[in-house]
Amino acid sequence: MPDRGSGADGADGADGRIDGLLELDLDRASRRGAPEAVLCDAKSVEQVAAIAGEYARLAAGRDDLGPVLFTRADADRAAAVLTALPAAHHDPGARFLAWPAEPPAPSGGLVIVACAGTSDLPVAREAELTARHLGRPTRLIADIGIAGLHRLIARLPELREAACVVVAAGMDGALPTVVAGQIAAPVVALPTSVGYGVAEGGRAALTTMLSACAPGIGVVNIDNGYGAGHLAAQIARWAPAPPG
Amino acid sequence: MPDRGSGADGADGADGRIDGLLELDLDRASRRGAPEAVLCDAKSVEQVAAIAGEYARLAAGRDDLGPVLFTRADADRAAAVLTALPAAHHDPGARFLAWPAEPPAPSGGLVIVACAGTSDLPVAREAELTARHLGRPTRLIADIGIAGLHRLIARLPELREAACVVVAAGMDGALPTVVAGQIAAPVVALPTSVGYGVAEGGRAALTTMLSACAPGIGVVNIDNGYGAGHLAAQIARWAPAPPG
Amino acid sequence: MPDRGSGADGADGADGRIDGLLELDLDRASRRGAPEAVLCDAKSVEQVAAIAGEYARLAAGRDDLGPVLFTRADADRAAAVLTALPAAHHDPGARFLAWPAEPPAPSGGLVIVACAGTSDLPVAREAELTARHLGRPTRLIADIGIAGLHRLIARLPELREAACVVVAAGMDGALPTVVAGQIAAPVVALPTSVGYGVAEGGRAALTTMLSACAPGIGVVNIDNGYGAGHLAAQIARWAPAPPG
Amino acid sequence: MPDRGSGADGADGADGRIDGLLELDLDRASRRGAPEAVLCDAKSVEQVAAIAGEYARLAAGRDDLGPVLFTRADADRAAAVLTALPAAHHDPGARFLAWPAEPPAPSGGLVIVACAGTSDLPVAREAELTARHLGRPTRLIADIGIAGLHRLIARLPELREAACVVVAAGMDGALPTVVAGQIAAPVVALPTSVGYGVAEGGRAALTTMLSACAPGIGVVNIDNGYGAGHLAAQIARWAPAPPG
Amino acid sequence: MPDRGSGADGADGADGRIDGLLELDLDRASRRGAPEAVLCDAKSVEQVAAIAGEYARLAAGRDDLGPVLFTRADADRAAAVLTALPAAHHDPGARFLAWPAEPPAPSGGLVIVACAGTSDLPVAREAELTARHLGRPTRLIADIGIAGLHRLIARLPELREAACVVVAAGMDGALPTVVAGQIAAPVVALPTSVGYGVAEGGRAALTTMLSACAPGIGVVNIDNGYGAGHLAAQIARWAPAPPG
Amino acid sequence: MPDRGSGADGADGADGRIDGLLELDLDRASRRGAPEAVLCDAKSVEQVAAIAGEYARLAAGRDDLGPVLFTRADADRAAAVLTALPAAHHDPGARFLAWPAEPPAPSGGLVIVACAGTSDLPVAREAELTARHLGRPTRLIADIGIAGLHRLIARLPELREAACVVVAAGMDGALPTVVAGQIAAPVVALPTSVGYGVAEGGRAALTTMLSACAPGIGVVNIDNGYGAGHLAAQIARWAPAPPG
Amino acid sequence: MPDRGSGADGADGADGRIDGLLELDLDRASRRGAPEAVLCDAKSVEQVAAIAGEYARLAAGRDDLGPVLFTRADADRAAAVLTALPAAHHDPGARFLAWPAEPPAPSGGLVIVACAGTSDLPVAREAELTARHLGRPTRLIADIGIAGLHRLIARLPELREAACVVVAAGMDGALPTVVAGQIAAPVVALPTSVGYGVAEGGRAALTTMLSACAPGIGVVNIDNGYGAGHLAAQIARWAPAPPG
Amino acid sequence: MPDRGSGADGADGADGRIDGLLELDLDRASRRGAPEAVLCDAKSVEQVAAIAGEYARLAAGRDDLGPVLFTRADADRAAAVLTALPAAHHDPGARFLAWPAEPPAPSGGLVIVACAGTSDLPVAREAELTARHLGRPTRLIADIGIAGLHRLIARLPELREAACVVVAAGMDGALPTVVAGQIAAPVVALPTSVGYGVAEGGRAALTTMLSACAPGIGVVNIDNGYGAGHLAAQIARWAPAPPG
Repeated sequence: MPDRGSGADGADGADGRIDGLLELDLDRASRRGAPEAVLCDAKSVEQVAAIAGEYARLAAGRDDLGPVLFTRADADRAAAVLTALPAAHHDPGARFLAWPAEPPAPSGGLVIVACAGTSDLPVAREAELTARHLGRPTRLIADIGIAGLHRLIARLPELREAACVVVAAGMDGALPTVVAGQIAAPVVALPTSVGYGVAEGGRAALTTMLSACAPGIGVVNIDNGYGAGHLAAQIARWAPAPPG
Repeated sequence: MPDRGSGADGADGADGRIDGLLELDLDRASRRGAPEAVLCDAKSVEQVAAIAGEYARLAAGRDDLGPVLFTRADADRAAAVLTALPAAHHDPGARFLAWPAEPPAPSGGLVIVACAGTSDLPVAREAELTARHLGRPTRLIADIGIAGLHRLIARLPELREAACVVVAAGMDGALPTVVAGQIAAPVVALPTSVGYGVAEGGRAALTTMLSACAPGIGVVNIDNGYGAGHLAAQIARWAPAPPG
Repeated sequence: MPDRGSGADGADGADGRIDGLLELDLDRASRRGAPEAVLCDAKSVEQVAAIAGEYARLAAGRDDLGPVLFTRADADRAAAVLTALPAAHHDPGARFLAWPAEPPAPSGGLVIVACAGTSDLPVAREAELTARHLGRPTRLIADIGIAGLHRLIARLPELREAACVVVAAGMDGALPTVVAGQIAAPVVALPTSVGYGVAEGGRAALTTMLSACAPGIGVVNIDNGYGAGHLAAQIARWAPAPPG
Repeated sequence: MPDRGSGADGADGADGRIDGLLELDLDRASRRGAPEAVLCDAKSVEQVAAIAGEYARLAAGRDDLGPVLFTRADADRAAAVLTALPAAHHDPGARFLAWPAEPPAPSGGLVIVACAGTSDLPVAREAELTARHLGRPTRLIADIGIAGLHRLIARLPELREAACVVVAAGMDGALPTVVAGQIAAPVVALPTSVGYGVAEGGRAALTTMLSACAPGIGVVNIDNGYGAGHLAAQIARWAPAPPG
Repeated sequence: MPDRGSGADGADGADGRIDGLLELDLDRASRRGAPEAVLCDAKSVEQVAAIAGEYARLAAGRDDLGPVLFTRADADRAAAVLTALPAAHHDPGARFLAWPAEPPAPSGGLVIVACAGTSDLPVAREAELTARHLGRPTRLIADIGIAGLHRLIARLPELREAACVVVAAGMDGALPTVVAGQIAAPVVALPTSVGYGVAEGGRAALTTMLSACAPGIGVVNIDNGYGAGHLAAQIARWAPAPPG
Repeated sequence: MPDRGSGADGADGADGRIDGLLELDLDRASRRGAPEAVLCDAKSVEQVAAIAGEYARLAAGRDDLGPVLFTRADADRAAAVLTALPAAHHDPGARFLAWPAEPPAPSGGLVIVACAGTSDLPVAREAELTARHLGRPTRLIADIGIAGLHRLIARLPELREAACVVVAAGMDGALPTVVAGQIAAPVVALPTSVGYGVAEGGRAALTTMLSACAPGIGVVNIDNGYGAGHLAAQIARWAPAPPG
Repeated sequence: MPDRGSGADGADGADGRIDGLLELDLDRASRRGAPEAVLCDAKSVEQVAAIAGEYARLAAGRDDLGPVLFTRADADRAAAVLTALPAAHHDPGARFLAWPAEPPAPSGGLVIVACAGTSDLPVAREAELTARHLGRPTRLIADIGIAGLHRLIARLPELREAACVVVAAGMDGALPTVVAGQIAAPVVALPTSVGYGVAEGGRAALTTMLSACAPGIGVVNIDNGYGAGHLAAQIARWAPAPPG
Repeated sequence: MPDRGSGADGADGADGRIDGLLELDLDRASRRGAPEAVLCDAKSVEQVAAIAGEYARLAAGRDDLGPVLFTRADADRAAAVLTALPAAHHDPGARFLAWPAEPPAPSGGLVIVACAGTSDLPVAREAELTARHLGRPTRLIADIGIAGLHRLIARLPELREAACVVVAAGMDGALPTVVAGQIAAPVVALPTSVGYGVAEGGRAALTTMLSACAPGIGVVNIDNGYGAGHLAAQIARWAPAPPG
């Protein structure tokens, strides 16, 4: 999840400060090697607008700012971002915006984001977009599931090209275990809230992933596509570029 | 789990009645098509001895009694059963006794009990022995796990011979889903209490099995090998005999 | 639950592939002995329409396709299916569609679906329709509950005709135990989310069913009528046809 | 559960006070219409001995004291009570002592305590003994379970003689619902910790009882035989004496 | 909770049977000593209307029918009842209807329903109305809470007149313990879903009540005002009438 | 949380009594050293209006009444309060009203309320306003989080001026531990319901705070800003005034 | 809970450092206003001995060291402490040691620790001893419980003398609410793990305390007597000395 | 966790097969880039001995076998390993054995394992040893905790040298968040079961880690030191060697 530490009610003082309540973490890129992200759904439309506006104002004065990611942005919050930063890239399905729109030139190893199908796609895409805008080459594979093992096996050569594979899954969440058992790269397991009955809300998938029999799996919070993509980008940072 | 409805403190009255507190369910075979079973670990050694003794006494007067199963019997309780019914079969690993020792001639379809390895073996064996003493042909496969997919795939032809497959698994409990996705027969999913951390006690495995993406799975309580074997024997009752 | 492995965003390539993200599991019937099903509530209306459309297109080229089931379809998703497959059967109460509308000629043993009353009916009907469209003779009994034991006892002869009984129950979920204790056939226990207080969401019913004192019960996820009906159809496959 | 409000470390001051830390609730009988009870397993052997000794000392000076109940007393704590109050009645199975040994002459309606069998017996007996020493006529029925419905139905005429029925059950805890649906008297539902897997510790039984479809059920804490017997004695207080 | 065992889809056959799916439990009054109740919120408006209509039709042919209670009835369902049974009494706050409107002449002991204030009132009133229409004299005390002990103490003489006290409480649910510690009559503890944070949904109150240090408390499900009132009416049945 | 013990349906009798169901706790200030508060979201608009009206009526007759706080008041309930008490102070963001509008002259030590940012602000402000209207000097610091440690460290001198620090936090709730480890004053930990996945609803934050490795932390219920501010005001009561 | 940050395997380097793995927090008293404490039960006997030895060594070189508290020390760990620091005070019941044995001269307001009786005494004493060795005047009241309200009311004048009251309770944990509703000073609620059934392990008591209807309560972790005493000592620091 | 897929009862057939029930995953190193590990505590001493013996036998015939890790080995199981593989390295504190004893020459980036102190050391060491025997340079830092922030800040330059930091923590589990917020490398969060009350068993720490506000954290199961070390070794594989 992006930093929640930004509050914005209106006016401003020093750079990155809004209303005495918000101080943007502008040196984060240097400290952490990754840009700041703004989690939109815990903020009001006005607060999102103020933050995007502050970035727009600052961007005029320096060229080392960004990229900035806006995650979990519904239509209203996305509009507020686009008003202030019209050049941002917006993926409505993933509720994701990135500014500038163009991701950095890809470096490091390939990040593959895999999931079983339609339901897990929005979260999987958020993970892929995050990794791409943090500078990695990325690919999305969205039709492998453990109920139809042949599809998964057919994709193994491709999966083995990745420096890190993010596997998103809801319901029983068993897919990351199966993938991790077949490849040498680390797997980031991304549980989704897709499911009903005992699987409702994603806890069943989360628990399965934490209990995986295969080693080599790091788990993130339910529906935390941003966090999964961020971690994968960090993991793949030093790996060799993918073939071809 | 076997019936818990039997209390025994000592003396006796009518057939199948002990101390006014216990009435054996002697007509169960006719009503349910399956013999009675005695869950030993919820009873004192004295109570187990009294029940086994009553069966021994009754067996003298009729030849339609049995088989009788004794489950979850530790060394002391097993000894109490063997004292009264010395001809019983005892499998200490599965904490299981059956009287008479010889199972009925196998009829119906093949019941395969599968698990990933050593830890799940005692419960898996309890399931297999139950199905066998209820009259089915049975087989135990104990080395397939989803972390090593090749072993599972190599066994698929064998698994497809079964009329019902019991799949025992602890930790993440993902094996039944993978098996059910590859075969046409029903799967009885048997979660075991093997695991640690979030998987401790078997709830993670249970939840995974209930959330399985593949249909065709019926789940039983954690470590309920008896119940899984009983259900599998019922399911396979009408199926054709296995090839060969 | 039906496979979740199908994603659909628009255009297409090979048979059963939509947008590079979806690959229908067209060989499932041969591999699993049961048709594919589409879980609608985890998909957008557009995705459901695309899947139904793909089936319609494929059906023109081959006659071994189907039946196909669409489950958990609200009014909008049902309309999308009916637009593409106007000959489908639609049961709005069960949120269920089947194509073709006519179920296969019944074979195997009788599947009875039983519940206590109105609240559990939609899920019970989903189970019955699933079993019927998978080729079994079926019957629905909807007025037996354990608070009024006489109704249940009056129905025992009928219940004993079944090769498999699906018992749906919410609240305390005690009905499957009572039924299983009286019949020889396997019981598929289907917890429903009907209930309030500690029973809210169906976990109380689920837990009761897993803890049942009577053996011969396989449990499915809460409100998983499709899964219960599918399992019952598999179980009853080899059983003799019901009397009369 | 008996009052936990008594601490005892040794010496004494005023009547019913031990060490300045304990003040026995000697006027409880007049305030609540029921005697005091001492929950032994949360106290040290020394503390139990001091309390029993204080009762013995006080009993010399007044004849309106008692009865006093000691619950959950293991062998050591029971011995401590018997040393101070040698005339107490001790039931080791129920871990229960009452002083004086002779219960009051029975008055009010019949309290029946029912359970399914051996495992639930110790808690059921604690309930029965409590109700008896609080002055009610009592009876224990220990072999009715819902898996074998015929036993339960055979006992209905007897159950209908009671002014209150305590039903103890572990595992799925479904018995109180079935009983309550058949009789006019209130049912006190007493969940026991007997069970394994999802039923371990008695929570499954507790939840089932709280979710019962039949009205007329009051539930107590898991294994709280004392509380169930106490409540039943209060309920039956004004009812007519049982026939015969 | 009232019986859930009634399903209704339209037409009818024998008395008390609707559509082959519903069979009213018309002999319940004789078997259980209490009338039938219809839980409305788990039924469609059409089903509620059909049930009320069937009662209206039957009432023409016999005068031993009723009272009938309709619980958890929102405006639409209440209107459906009133259309068929215009002479019913309707309490919208308690979402409760009783037919006939006039309760039976009070007999047995006094039932007091107590709660801490406004939030718990709807459930408390449902309990009071149920007990009243089952034939007990009743009273509602709605302003005692443990944070202001003086109010509770001032009401003790009144509370001690009751043969049974129903205590409704949300949040920490501590009120029943305090009341039970001060009176001789049984307490029915009725947890409500009023609360937030860890108390949200009423589980905290429920757990507190089950853990009460004072004996003499029977607990019902969260928000189960009907069940609490029903149990209280049963408990107070044999008690002497209140003074005055 | 404010007292829930006030019910109001209309007319009135003695001072502070409404409809026989509500008795305001007017002597609370003398007993507890703090004014009464009215939790609005568990009351209807009419009930809130009646309570505010009663306070307005009483205020005419005595000058020792107040302050009175109204918490969790949405727009409708706030309007009802302002109609009766137009001189009240209203903070819509904190859903808080205080009458009279002017807080008492500050006395005692400084209460600082700290949080990480925008999402936790409403609850943090409720805490600050409560402490201020209970008579303490207060300050709000809203931009310190543990992910950006430098901000927190820069604020330590300021935090060390407080006699009590309320720390509000959602998600992982780790901020109170870090603060408590660095200052000598007590910390009131205030978990908020801000979060998703395993942090949804605030239980993760609550658990973290209760498990804090640093001593000197008292925890309140999730989102209980009123309770946190109340406790902080009590704690800071005797402390010296802040410097400057 | 005391800091867990100390590891000790043997030899040593600089002051307060053991084996390169442990660095005692010697400046804590100046930073936090309270001495260091060592949680013993998470350390081996050898580690406890090494830590106590290091303190003994350091104490020779400076006189501003201490007091040091050792909590949750069983007999073996206590012996290890006493070997190194023979002048320490040891309370075996509270599993507590303090060095030096003599607490500081009392300053600040009175801390009262209250509980219902014997079972909660060890934790209550740990709280009292902690507050005393942190410099507050303290008193222990161990016989008030809500089931016997008269004892509590009789103690109110005494309780009102305290600047802070720690209330320890297990089972339903309702005592802190009742106390907080009657006094003006803050209450530290200390749940204990005393209880069975739904109250087992102390979660029921904890939840009750967090849900308390009365404000003015700060809650600590279950059985965290040290934390409660520490917080109470901080709270009472500035309050006037008790009368007399 | 290491593969659980190995069962061993005695004799043998082909290489890596024991008793028909066990098939060692000998090609795992080539498939996954990491050696096999044997989780000992879920196996009997005899089974561990058989597996170690099989490795010893195989090692004679090939030199590409190993390293092999044995985790969670108590004294008996460790002795069984050492009997068969006397040249193995054994760390009793970490319950860990590696064969051959000498780790591979370090390659890739530095793995730092950090924890707060003694209690978390055994699990932290298991993580470090795993990473080392999988070929990474490693370092252990065991005295940083968030309650004493200065220790952590002093270690930041060292932590920033790592290509991956494993952070082990029990109780509130807040340390990984604080570390991740300060460094650019990925953090593997390793919750331990150290804790009491709400933190008992490690779930509180796990939840905190999953809810972390800082991105860049992958979480493993509670006490899964092997899994954490394995993942860290994979992550650091491509990173440059540490300075110096």
